[in-house]
Amino acid sequence: MPFAVAIHGGAGLIRRSSLTPERQERCLVSLRRITISAAEALEQGASALDVAIGAVVALEDDPLFNAGHGAVLASHGEAELDAAVMEGTHRAAGAVAAARTPRNPVQLAHAVMVHTPHVLLAAEGADALAEELRIPQVDPSYFVVEARREQLQRARASGRFHLDHGGADKDVYGTVGAVACDATGAVAAATSTGGMVNKRPGRVGDTPVIGAGTFAWNDTCAVSGTGHGEPFLRLGVASRVSARMELAGESLATAAEHVIHRELPGVEGQGGLVAVDAQGNLALPFNTAGMFRGWARQGQPPDVAIW
Amino acid sequence: MPFAVAIHGGAGLIRRSSLTPERQERCLVSLRRITISAAEALEQGASALDVAIGAVVALEDDPLFNAGHGAVLASHGEAELDAAVMEGTHRAAGAVAAARTPRNPVQLAHAVMVHTPHVLLAAEGADALAEELRIPQVDPSYFVVEARREQLQRARASGRFHLDHGGADKDVYGTVGAVACDATGAVAAATSTGGMVNKRPGRVGDTPVIGAGTFAWNDTCAVSGTGHGEPFLRLGVASRVSARMELAGESLATAAEHVIHRELPGVEGQGGLVAVDAQGNLALPFNTAGMFRGWARQGQPPDVAIW
Repeated sequence: MPFAVAIHGGAGLIRRSSLTPERQERCLVSLRRITISAAEALEQGASALDVAIGAVVALEDDPLFNAGHGAVLASHGEAELDAAVMEGTHRAAGAVAAARTPRNPVQLAHAVMVHTPHVLLAAEGADALAEELRIPQVDPSYFVVEARREQLQRARASGRFHLDHGGADKDVYGTVGAVACDATGAVAAATSTGGMVNKRPGRVGDTPVIGAGTFAWNDTCAVSGTGHGEPFLRLGVASRVSARMELAGESLATAAEHVIHRELPGVEGQGGLVAVDAQGNLALPFNTAGMFRGWARQGQPPDVAIW
Repeated sequence: MPFAVAIHGGAGLIRRSSLTPERQERCLVSLRRITISAAEALEQGASALDVAIGAVVALEDDPLFNAGHGAVLASHGEAELDAAVMEGTHRAAGAVAAARTPRNPVQLAHAVMVHTPHVLLAAEGADALAEELRIPQVDPSYFVVEARREQLQRARASGRFHLDHGGADKDVYGTVGAVACDATGAVAAATSTGGMVNKRPGRVGDTPVIGAGTFAWNDTCAVSGTGHGEPFLRLGVASRVSARMELAGESLATAAEHVIHRELPGVEGQGGLVAVDAQGNLALPFNTAGMFRGWARQGQPPDVAIW
């Protein structure tokens, strides 16, 4: 099988005016570096799961993207972190929601998959597992970067802090994620996020929900989503792509395009996804102005794009 | 449209030996009372959503079932409550996970749907919304009944308290739920649970996850699941029934049977579900020894069963 990998660093309005040429360049450099590194790992025989997790760890560590270090802040001024992993051979999965101490939430999600009989651990229960298994933890201040503190202040000042009636910050659907297909035809997906700016503590979006923001099955595809989490949750975006391939006989590209451009608007949803099937085909549709993304297939040069 | 309603009080091994005739009778009486009450409400024009929520409130209040008062206890000796609601017209949904104070978790899930832009709130964030909106709260001791305390002690004593390697209590897949189709052809689903006996704090099962334990869409069906939560999460059981109807053209009965008897075993899953379509057809499949259930359709006498 030809290997393939795709990563994303979030989708959204991404105004050209608010993205300085310098920041744009830094984002593209990061995406390219991480894409190349993932492709090299696949070339050397790494598993799809390890590559997807490795790419998401790199994106979490990069303060440019909304996950891990540099995640957006909830209304109480701290980051609450969601992450998930799924591998397509056994359809095993692990996820954490509203965690506050794992340095790399995606690694804790992986630990939930490997070391517990559970799929999803939330809040203090997630942090407690990190403690128990000695998954690296940090003080919550590690996640906070100055730009996010200012962003939270702007959100509060503009009244986008109260959640009773649709006050989502529509500019910012930051998430990071990766999908990979390795040489054995196994696929995997990993996703991580700080969620929405100024979100209510305890709010869980689609990222850590298997079938919504993250899904993998060798019979169909692996998917990592990014967008306004609530419509993704109601629709079950990631598993919809798989279901259309399996039950309607669609190709990966057709299924992914249909879900993002036809189904998601039906629940007022905005966002995108990266997906790969077990033949190494890729799809990276989005219905927003842009999506930070990078991709590579065996024998082809890697590429990156925003708009 | 003919109205219809189905409720469940959990699926599982349900050994006849461990269910005394007296307890069996009490369960059947409760299921019958709640089914009749739901059917009467539909007869009088109540909406599918109100009827599904009302039935789940009654099941939560009944200490015989694992939800609300009488929920199973997590390893720390308190109940952590999960619940979800979804209505099929707008596909709006709300859910709470690992909540500890709402007297009726399903009503808090409904409040998430109606009063916030979110779908899922976890842990303290869920309890904080109850406080803010004055949804009735109770001291966590309200949920604890003596039989559950004893059950937790037995689980601890038998080594089923540590979660590292599959120590699930396989006898007990308690959940409660309801689906309804009203005279307008609208469908809705509601589900609530205390989860697994002796679970790790913060563990979230399928119940509060839209598409896994709870789903509703007028174009297809409403589903409420019950079973071992992790396979339900990985497969996305509730939305699979809908997807098979929509994309493979199956009837409700065929789709529901296929998911429970063919797909769920593929991820080592045990449990069942209740489902209704917009024509008032019902399906109540389970692959366990039994499932506590009740059902009624317009013009037909209500019925209840365990095995």
